Amino acid sequence: MAMVCLSDFEAYAKKYLPKIAWDYFAAGADDCTTRDENILAYKRIRFRPRVLRDVSVMDIRTKILGSEISFPVGIAPTGFHQLAWPDGEKSTARAARAMNTCYIASTYSTCTLEEISAAAPGGLRWFQLYIHRNRAASQQLVRRAEALGFQGLVLTADLPYTGKRRDDVRNGFRLPPHMKVKNLERAFEVCKMSPLDPSVTWNDIYWLQSLTRLPIIIKGILTREDAELAVRHGVQGIIVSNHGGRQLDEGPATIDALVEVVEAVRGRVEVYVDGGIRKGSDVLKALALGAKCVFIGRPALWGLAYKGEEGLQDVLRILQDEFRLSMALAG
Amino acid sequence: MAMVCLSDFEAYAKKYLPKIAWDYFAAGADDCTTRDENILAYKRIRFRPRVLRDVSVMDIRTKILGSEISFPVGIAPTGFHQLAWPDGEKSTARAARAMNTCYIASTYSTCTLEEISAAAPGGLRWFQLYIHRNRAASQQLVRRAEALGFQGLVLTADLPYTGKRRDDVRNGFRLPPHMKVKNLERAFEVCKMSPLDPSVTWNDIYWLQSLTRLPIIIKGILTREDAELAVRHGVQGIIVSNHGGRQLDEGPATIDALVEVVEAVRGRVEVYVDGGIRKGSDVLKALALGAKCVFIGRPALWGLAYKGEEGLQDVLRILQDEFRLSMALAG
Amino acid sequence: MAMVCLSDFEAYAKKYLPKIAWDYFAAGADDCTTRDENILAYKRIRFRPRVLRDVSVMDIRTKILGSEISFPVGIAPTGFHQLAWPDGEKSTARAARAMNTCYIASTYSTCTLEEISAAAPGGLRWFQLYIHRNRAASQQLVRRAEALGFQGLVLTADLPYTGKRRDDVRNGFRLPPHMKVKNLERAFEVCKMSPLDPSVTWNDIYWLQSLTRLPIIIKGILTREDAELAVRHGVQGIIVSNHGGRQLDEGPATIDALVEVVEAVRGRVEVYVDGGIRKGSDVLKALALGAKCVFIGRPALWGLAYKGEEGLQDVLRILQDEFRLSMALAG
Amino acid sequence: MAMVCLSDFEAYAKKYLPKIAWDYFAAGADDCTTRDENILAYKRIRFRPRVLRDVSVMDIRTKILGSEISFPVGIAPTGFHQLAWPDGEKSTARAARAMNTCYIASTYSTCTLEEISAAAPGGLRWFQLYIHRNRAASQQLVRRAEALGFQGLVLTADLPYTGKRRDDVRNGFRLPPHMKVKNLERAFEVCKMSPLDPSVTWNDIYWLQSLTRLPIIIKGILTREDAELAVRHGVQGIIVSNHGGRQLDEGPATIDALVEVVEAVRGRVEVYVDGGIRKGSDVLKALALGAKCVFIGRPALWGLAYKGEEGLQDVLRILQDEFRLSMALAG
Repeated sequence: MAMVCLSDFEAYAKKYLPKIAWDYFAAGADDCTTRDENILAYKRIRFRPRVLRDVSVMDIRTKILGSEISFPVGIAPTGFHQLAWPDGEKSTARAARAMNTCYIASTYSTCTLEEISAAAPGGLRWFQLYIHRNRAASQQLVRRAEALGFQGLVLTADLPYTGKRRDDVRNGFRLPPHMKVKNLERAFEVCKMSPLDPSVTWNDIYWLQSLTRLPIIIKGILTREDAELAVRHGVQGIIVSNHGGRQLDEGPATIDALVEVVEAVRGRVEVYVDGGIRKGSDVLKALALGAKCVFIGRPALWGLAYKGEEGLQDVLRILQDEFRLSMALAG
Repeated sequence: MAMVCLSDFEAYAKKYLPKIAWDYFAAGADDCTTRDENILAYKRIRFRPRVLRDVSVMDIRTKILGSEISFPVGIAPTGFHQLAWPDGEKSTARAARAMNTCYIASTYSTCTLEEISAAAPGGLRWFQLYIHRNRAASQQLVRRAEALGFQGLVLTADLPYTGKRRDDVRNGFRLPPHMKVKNLERAFEVCKMSPLDPSVTWNDIYWLQSLTRLPIIIKGILTREDAELAVRHGVQGIIVSNHGGRQLDEGPATIDALVEVVEAVRGRVEVYVDGGIRKGSDVLKALALGAKCVFIGRPALWGLAYKGEEGLQDVLRILQDEFRLSMALAG
Repeated sequence: MAMVCLSDFEAYAKKYLPKIAWDYFAAGADDCTTRDENILAYKRIRFRPRVLRDVSVMDIRTKILGSEISFPVGIAPTGFHQLAWPDGEKSTARAARAMNTCYIASTYSTCTLEEISAAAPGGLRWFQLYIHRNRAASQQLVRRAEALGFQGLVLTADLPYTGKRRDDVRNGFRLPPHMKVKNLERAFEVCKMSPLDPSVTWNDIYWLQSLTRLPIIIKGILTREDAELAVRHGVQGIIVSNHGGRQLDEGPATIDALVEVVEAVRGRVEVYVDGGIRKGSDVLKALALGAKCVFIGRPALWGLAYKGEEGLQDVLRILQDEFRLSMALAG
Repeated sequence: MAMVCLSDFEAYAKKYLPKIAWDYFAAGADDCTTRDENILAYKRIRFRPRVLRDVSVMDIRTKILGSEISFPVGIAPTGFHQLAWPDGEKSTARAARAMNTCYIASTYSTCTLEEISAAAPGGLRWFQLYIHRNRAASQQLVRRAEALGFQGLVLTADLPYTGKRRDDVRNGFRLPPHMKVKNLERAFEVCKMSPLDPSVTWNDIYWLQSLTRLPIIIKGILTREDAELAVRHGVQGIIVSNHGGRQLDEGPATIDALVEVVEAVRGRVEVYVDGGIRKGSDVLKALALGAKCVFIGRPALWGLAYKGEEGLQDVLRILQDEFRLSMALAG
């Protein structure tokens, strides 16, 4: 079967992944309305194509927080990559480096930050984190990431509690015994409770800033009000995200929320978006609406499920080709 | 099968209830447009989720007409609970008390008011009534309810005649011989005709007030004009309702009508809503749009059909958990 | 099978009529968009139900051009009733008289005007006509109708040529040999060509008025401009109609066009509507939007197909009951 | 099977063409959204039908760039007609001449311009071209077309690169060995690279004008801005086109874009439209919105696939009849 577009990888993953893993990756909260809206909202946006422009040479490189990437598509933080491919996040890191783009490693990785770093030395990587009840655990993770050369900290703001994903409840989802949330093993030593702290507020940004010189990117902003608060609290970037529709169902699609966030931010910090990117033309739409770069979540997992780092490179390469073609055809 | 969300209970009830009972509970008038709109209208409402707020402690208790309930979801009046579970309304009363919420017992109960009261002493209960052709019958019911400690009277205003529910006509719906509309047995002694009076007008509210010291809640209001009339006639509460889409088809969804009713009422009386509540986030939407509390109809029957009072508690507990999670995730 | 609503009759007719007859009655032009829009447009209209009004006594009689009918639903002109029931238009006439409503007999009847009149003496009937190339043929029909006691002339304005109904073309639709367009047999003696004249204009209304003292109702108006012209040319009534979606596809639904026609007419003549009436609540909507009466086309044929005049009475009685109930429930 | 409307030809072609050929003709870019929108957008446009106008005589002839055609429907440029019928573009030319309309021969014809000319001497034909990297190749084609009596040059502006048509990629689409892109055989002698030049800009229009006295029609305009540029650069006509939805997906439907182009052009040049024409009423809509003439692409291929030039004539004749009928019924 030819892998022509991202939905081919989706079909492959659905067919070959264990049901419990597929369901976990595919899950959305409640009725999955927002998960699906993320995609539908892109379809509602229409191009106004221009013609007879010289599109023989196009430069699709961009910079995010000062680092150049080969095209404006990075890897969003998602958990448990070993569910998709034995080498897990190590493959992800290799693919991202090979394609010269940014990979945001999740706290919920099945490889340690050290393994990820060692797998693809020199790659551009950010680290995604939550703030834990025991601040020491968070502090430890931040210090490790910084020491390993991660170049940004992505604070996830939309998970005070985990959203209700019905299939995961039905499946009694948990990691198979041979996989571990390795980054948190040490953290759990100092904090036996559920690690995430639902009492976190904007003031905790200041605490985080006090720990590190790394730029802080906040992920999970969907409103102009929170965008303004993020800028005022001194973050360096915003990822407009609804956690792939896995947290609060029936909020806005990210591409729709992007518009009001970009407007509120007025260029003071970089704005990115994730959720619903399935074609190169979606990337172009996000950029046209003010995003500096997009991040892909599930499609990256489908790529891993197909052929590990090679499969993920295929996914990225297809998006890159489609993005370049869309730019040319849109003039 | 895990019971994860309310539609699991719906599927169970559809599978295990006798067809004639399922059809009766599920029925909507004519093309069932309004019945289905009640649900679809909730889906059209979108949240604007806020992040980084302290949601570690949330108080979801509320008060309706001065009585505290553990969370803002009560049991709407529906008839014939023995069709769903042998103990009928006695189970409903026990579940409502166990969950510390309000149960509106229907005139068309298959248990007497006395049986209902005895089943769950001390529970918060209101009594739903119609005005009968023979006013003495209504008067008798009001006095019984008051004497038994019911704390509110819910006057249903949208049933001068019964709506046309096609499946019930096809099925020739009637109660099985061993079930009875027990509250009306005595009433029928004084009134052999169809008991409900289609000539009832707003002035009959005054008559009802003259009979009782209980607060009067009017159920079936869908317009600002009628909301204003209700307030002027001195009711204590309004339930925005279209009778679950069982009366006039192609009227508004209740959540849509709620907006104009709340606006018209301007806080002078409490406003509640029923119809279409299927998830905790629906409850949150109704509250955000001005409802003090919501009431569930069919989902309560599905819970009864599943496991009697235990099943109904499951339904209420799921709604409670979902409601609390939605509040946290919406910030 | 219980016949509960009009779609039950539709299902029956589809099952038991010869395919060629069903296809002919069901046919719409081209993609049948307008035929289906007639129905969908009613569904888009929402009631604002009022409560606590005295609906114990309701008078649903009305008058059209001075004649009282028992409720505001008449029989629209449709052709070839013998395709639905052996007695054809004679049964239609009897059913209409039994229900005390108005029947508009079509030029394309399979019974003569004389047979129709004799079948149900004293019934309220109008005669539908086209203007023929040979004016003498039209004149003859008008004189016959007037002499037989028809009380109105309905001029169809939207059929200069027959619309393209694909199934009829595929089926090679024609009347079976034992049926005849009896009213035109004599007319064809004087005019061997296709009888209808595509050069007819508004001035021909004057010619028609010169032939008869009967009121003239014009059928097929869909715009305010034509409604104004109709009034200026002295007609007594307007039927807003798109010929059941059988002529120009992708014009407006009749219930939508009704609004602008009523507005343009400003009460100077009576306005009626046909197309898409399937429930009593549709009748109520049409009246609320300014129609004096509605006419049903296909549903009448389904009734005939079910049980002749008895079946048509069933259809009318269901509409009447539903209409009365809708009025009560809408307050 | 009776061929009653264009979709009958579509069904036939889908059934009898080799899959690879059907897929190629049917292909749209990416998700085929724009391909399908071209059709759906026509359905959203509603007529306001007028009645009682004299429609006994209607003249449906028109002139495009001074040449009379029998009705306002021409043949859009599409490639590889031998995939549909052995005689390929020769049949197309004959059918167009027989119906007295205009045929725009594609650069990607499987017959040479000379063969096309010889097949139907005297027919009205335009030639569609791209601008090649090697300008000499384009120059040669222009000169040949002019010498052969083609009366217009249609410059395709929306194909700097070929759109991504997934099925063609999956099928590994290429012409069977016995077919050739004959017009480019000579051109390829002087240019071994991919012939089309993505660096073409508006200035190249001037170069093209310097080569020929033929009028230049630009194809692929979708915005008012580009329409204005086209007029300023001295073209004689504009074809509003999105290449049948085969280039940039999720741009506007052509009938929607037509409105803004017509408005921008203000009558200074003729405006045509292609894409989505499936019925005579679509033609009427396009003309009512300002198009001078429409062109059909896929329907012409379906006609060829059915019976060569005879099948294409059938398609054109159906459109002509439907167009005339729509005009009469719309008044």
